[in-house]
Amino acid sequence: MKKRTSTVITLLISLIFIPYLKATESFVHFTPNDTGVALVTPSSQSFAIWCDEKEHAGVLTAISNLQTDFGRVTDVIPSLTNKGRQDVRVIVGSYDKSPLIRQLIKAGKLDAKELKNKNEKFIITTLHAPLEGLEGEILLIAGSDKRGTIYGIYELSRQIGVSPWYWWADVPVARHDAVYIKKGIYTDGEPAVKYRGIFINDEWPCMGNWTTQKFGGFNSKMYVHVYELLLRLKANFLWPAMWNSAFYADDPLNSSLADEMGIIIGTSHHEPMARNHQEYARNRKDYGAWNYQTNKKGIDRFFREGIQRMKGKEEVVTIAMRGDGDAPMGADTDTHLLENIVKEQRKIITEITGKPAYKTPQLWALYSEVLEYYDQGMKIPDDVIILLCDDNWGNVRRLPELKGKRHPGGYGMYYHVDLHGAPRAYQWLNMTQIQHMWEQLYLTYTYGVDEMWILNVGDLKPNEFPTDFFLNMAWNPNLFTADNLTEYTYNFCKQQFGEKYAAEAARVLSSYCKYSARVTAEMLDHRTYNLTNGEFKSVADEFLALEAHAYRLFAVLPQEMKDAYQELILFPVQAMANLYEMYYATAMNRKLASDSDPRANQWADRVEYCFQRDAELCSDYNNRIAGGKWNHMMDQTHIGYTSWDEQKREYNA
Amino acid sequence: MKKRTSTVITLLISLIFIPYLKATESFVHFTPNDTGVALVTPSSQSFAIWCDEKEHAGVLTAISNLQTDFGRVTDVIPSLTNKGRQDVRVIVGSYDKSPLIRQLIKAGKLDAKELKNKNEKFIITTLHAPLEGLEGEILLIAGSDKRGTIYGIYELSRQIGVSPWYWWADVPVARHDAVYIKKGIYTDGEPAVKYRGIFINDEWPCMGNWTTQKFGGFNSKMYVHVYELLLRLKANFLWPAMWNSAFYADDPLNSSLADEMGIIIGTSHHEPMARNHQEYARNRKDYGAWNYQTNKKGIDRFFREGIQRMKGKEEVVTIAMRGDGDAPMGADTDTHLLENIVKEQRKIITEITGKPAYKTPQLWALYSEVLEYYDQGMKIPDDVIILLCDDNWGNVRRLPELKGKRHPGGYGMYYHVDLHGAPRAYQWLNMTQIQHMWEQLYLTYTYGVDEMWILNVGDLKPNEFPTDFFLNMAWNPNLFTADNLTEYTYNFCKQQFGEKYAAEAARVLSSYCKYSARVTAEMLDHRTYNLTNGEFKSVADEFLALEAHAYRLFAVLPQEMKDAYQELILFPVQAMANLYEMYYATAMNRKLASDSDPRANQWADRVEYCFQRDAELCSDYNNRIAGGKWNHMMDQTHIGYTSWDEQKREYNA
Repeated sequence: MKKRTSTVITLLISLIFIPYLKATESFVHFTPNDTGVALVTPSSQSFAIWCDEKEHAGVLTAISNLQTDFGRVTDVIPSLTNKGRQDVRVIVGSYDKSPLIRQLIKAGKLDAKELKNKNEKFIITTLHAPLEGLEGEILLIAGSDKRGTIYGIYELSRQIGVSPWYWWADVPVARHDAVYIKKGIYTDGEPAVKYRGIFINDEWPCMGNWTTQKFGGFNSKMYVHVYELLLRLKANFLWPAMWNSAFYADDPLNSSLADEMGIIIGTSHHEPMARNHQEYARNRKDYGAWNYQTNKKGIDRFFREGIQRMKGKEEVVTIAMRGDGDAPMGADTDTHLLENIVKEQRKIITEITGKPAYKTPQLWALYSEVLEYYDQGMKIPDDVIILLCDDNWGNVRRLPELKGKRHPGGYGMYYHVDLHGAPRAYQWLNMTQIQHMWEQLYLTYTYGVDEMWILNVGDLKPNEFPTDFFLNMAWNPNLFTADNLTEYTYNFCKQQFGEKYAAEAARVLSSYCKYSARVTAEMLDHRTYNLTNGEFKSVADEFLALEAHAYRLFAVLPQEMKDAYQELILFPVQAMANLYEMYYATAMNRKLASDSDPRANQWADRVEYCFQRDAELCSDYNNRIAGGKWNHMMDQTHIGYTSWDEQKREYNA
Repeated sequence: MKKRTSTVITLLISLIFIPYLKATESFVHFTPNDTGVALVTPSSQSFAIWCDEKEHAGVLTAISNLQTDFGRVTDVIPSLTNKGRQDVRVIVGSYDKSPLIRQLIKAGKLDAKELKNKNEKFIITTLHAPLEGLEGEILLIAGSDKRGTIYGIYELSRQIGVSPWYWWADVPVARHDAVYIKKGIYTDGEPAVKYRGIFINDEWPCMGNWTTQKFGGFNSKMYVHVYELLLRLKANFLWPAMWNSAFYADDPLNSSLADEMGIIIGTSHHEPMARNHQEYARNRKDYGAWNYQTNKKGIDRFFREGIQRMKGKEEVVTIAMRGDGDAPMGADTDTHLLENIVKEQRKIITEITGKPAYKTPQLWALYSEVLEYYDQGMKIPDDVIILLCDDNWGNVRRLPELKGKRHPGGYGMYYHVDLHGAPRAYQWLNMTQIQHMWEQLYLTYTYGVDEMWILNVGDLKPNEFPTDFFLNMAWNPNLFTADNLTEYTYNFCKQQFGEKYAAEAARVLSSYCKYSARVTAEMLDHRTYNLTNGEFKSVADEFLALEAHAYRLFAVLPQEMKDAYQELILFPVQAMANLYEMYYATAMNRKLASDSDPRANQWADRVEYCFQRDAELCSDYNNRIAGGKWNHMMDQTHIGYTSWDEQKREYNA
């Protein structure tokens, strides 16, 4: 395992090396540049990408996407070659794999120390005819390893104008008839957080019904889009959906495709040993009771099969054990039992991989009751990542002592922008203000929690914006300060809607997040705000005023941007403004009714109107936006909660 | 002159005869009706309207419009015949003119007493083959006089779905393939107020530039649309535009067409003796000074020419005199002089018409300083209508004593929904809440002010809604109560946008009027509301919230309704919401700047955005809505007033 210096020193180093940590500068231009590389010009409508055939398969997948991206931007689809040719304008390769990269190093065209022993780093640079058979200026994308190269490829994609969200948020591509690369050396350095990823969770009824209808289930046809998104966002880690699906068992391609493309798979905090809970739930009779005290043999077999299947793939194994499903194990659980379970699990890992347990990355989630055991002195093996958690509401619960002895395996953070739990679920729309997330994650990072950051994103849609922020911050938290978060929001909007509309879109999006972060949709009701002092009318009008601003922009946006704008901004604003209005009307109705004022009826009509409008808005999102591409994504119950979970769960509806 | 009973008795009569005073019931149906008249059916696609050739020319004009209206609703354009034919389905005629009507009375098909000695009354009824040569069920539209018949014709137009505002607000017509008339007798009775009309005033830069561009000036090509609108709204009176145009002199057709169509012309409160101020202003040298003491001869000649020209036309002559243009006559004016002027004027009238002065309807406006003279005991001839006035802001200044001696000539009311005057002009958008207008006009009516109601409508657009209300109320004030004004608003919206959208349109329109009536656009600035206690943000958000509601409806309205909706509802809401936001941003900017808070700059940007948006909105209204039909109607200065009149007047720009 990587040795850790103290956080203070880490911070100092970060500050000293800050030029290396800065985001990649803009190197793509659409107007001619004297000294750089001309990939596409009005007169030169073809070029080749040279990549060695021994390259990582995942890199070849990314190149294939890059080819498509060029076609969408310019109409020119570059060809792929495994030989040097005159028309080669781009060279792609991984230091750890590509003979081509070694050749370039040998030729003195690339400094090996920029890539050797580096993690997920890319160098993008321009070279003059660096190898025999090549002519003119060439763009090199070289990675330290598979993901380093892939991130470099997607960095080029992003800069030519393909948003990482192009598929997930229907972001259109601005067309250009030329693409030029400015001379220079570009890198994003290495990531600050080792494992950066998301947890698709609480995925029914929305994502579940959606992927069932569109792809036939949580299979590789859907996951390929998740993997691509994560890689375009420079992430590397995923806890797949697990409410009713078994990622490994349901589609064997799920895990092999992830491994090939470069996504590291884990299982959620309560699914140990690379096995899905559903694999047990569906075979209870076969494995026996989920009780390590009474059924060690059955459970061990279940664990063993998981490690066996995982062998050879890049994964992070969740260890320890919780109860059946996402619940405590029971009253008789104690520290000693848990320690013993972990000891046995690591034996299995050692046995099956044939290597010491510490060679397999593992994490132990201190979620819920497990944190209490830890506080009571439960021992955690040195090499295991301790996964700390927020309180499910974006407030970090526990951080390592700055001055105390640090856990050698390092720490991770499990963070939420979605919750299916108490005191009340929030699973419908984005309720997170990135300012709050930044404050908590910056705290997290400064306390040295940088081994893993994983975000519970619910159905993924419509948490696009906080997901984007979380993964960007995970790459390099030092880039973000309290002062530049509005700039980040602006840049996010610029990426999706272009410069012309970015400022106003960002203003609306920021305000939406600010208003929604006050109270979740599910928690909001007619008692939330004070009616008599005018507060309720103020907050309702404020949200409706935002809706007016959101519409104004919608009215002037080019047609091709409207789907993306509705998904990312307009719909959430409409839906929440309507909900505020509905509950305000409910409050007015009740107040007037209790005064025997007949105007209560008008407000009752308004409640009905809003209730109906809510259904219409959700139906519009499901069926009309992007031609119905996101059907079911708005199936989530969000009105009338009386307990923490009011929804009717319908699996495979 | 009509003898007046006391107001109390008038009111009692109104109450007793209330069934006769009710608005005409709905008699048009678009689905078959067993016993009524089938005008157009899917299988019968033609019919004729029978009108005697001796009919009033204005009635024939109205029939011509009815023919067009049928074509727009059904594709069937009925033919006009002056003989009984099998295909006649409609008979039209005036009691005071049409041999056809006398024939029907003689045949016992129509009761003469319903029309004889009645004013502007129509009877619409269904008859079975009432005359030889006719077959089946026939619809009769019979008027007591020219306008009675015309109002009956337009009542049918309205009921088949042609809004009185179809031309002035681009209201679309709902298509039907059949039109049936329900058996029955329908009437709106006689009007409660004798002269009901509008004053087109303060007509530059908007209406002036508009009609100059579209029609070449304030000529009959434009006025024909005003006359038609007034008749469709059962009005009969007009003070034409007079800032820079001479209604009589500029286009001789202006007055002859009005007389033919049935519109009674007057001149504004400070233009005596049927002459336009411009006729004097353009010929000062010829007529000499506007001073009755020093230049009686010149002025008398000017007066004489007016009465000469008017002779034989239905007009109401403004008498007395004010200063040059809309101003007091000067310090040396006294009661005695004014009384003398009036005496001389009435001499001229008697002389030229060859009839006693009381045979020519006259009015004396007690506007501004003239009211003071009246209070000081100035005598007004018995037969002259005393025109009382509001305070320019919709608050009635003076009403006759209920118990005192009443003026035998009766009273009129000059009311404003537009002002070019102190303390600050309001000429841009509708700023009137009909609830307020109702309260003041109901008061006016109950005090027996029912000889004339005239409304200063500014440019007419965009005061469509209060104009509609004013003229409807003038016909029968007893129909309106504090409780049914929202119903009226609903019906207005139903007429323009159909039943489906009426309720929500009415809600938005009502709220717009409520918010705008608080302070005019021209009076509003960054100091209007309290910033520190949150009031300013509340009112700005409230207006923006209304904009959101207005957009929601806009989004679902059928395309053909969008122009009308923008003109009548959306544009005023957008424009005022933007203005509120602009001044709120100005207030925030000033507050933060005075605190040396750099966020002041963000608010300055917002002010700039709103200022720019205001220009864009107005340009959109002028150039895009209805294909640019209303170009210049939004040219009015409405930002940055520092005195009562900030605009630059540009005549014939």
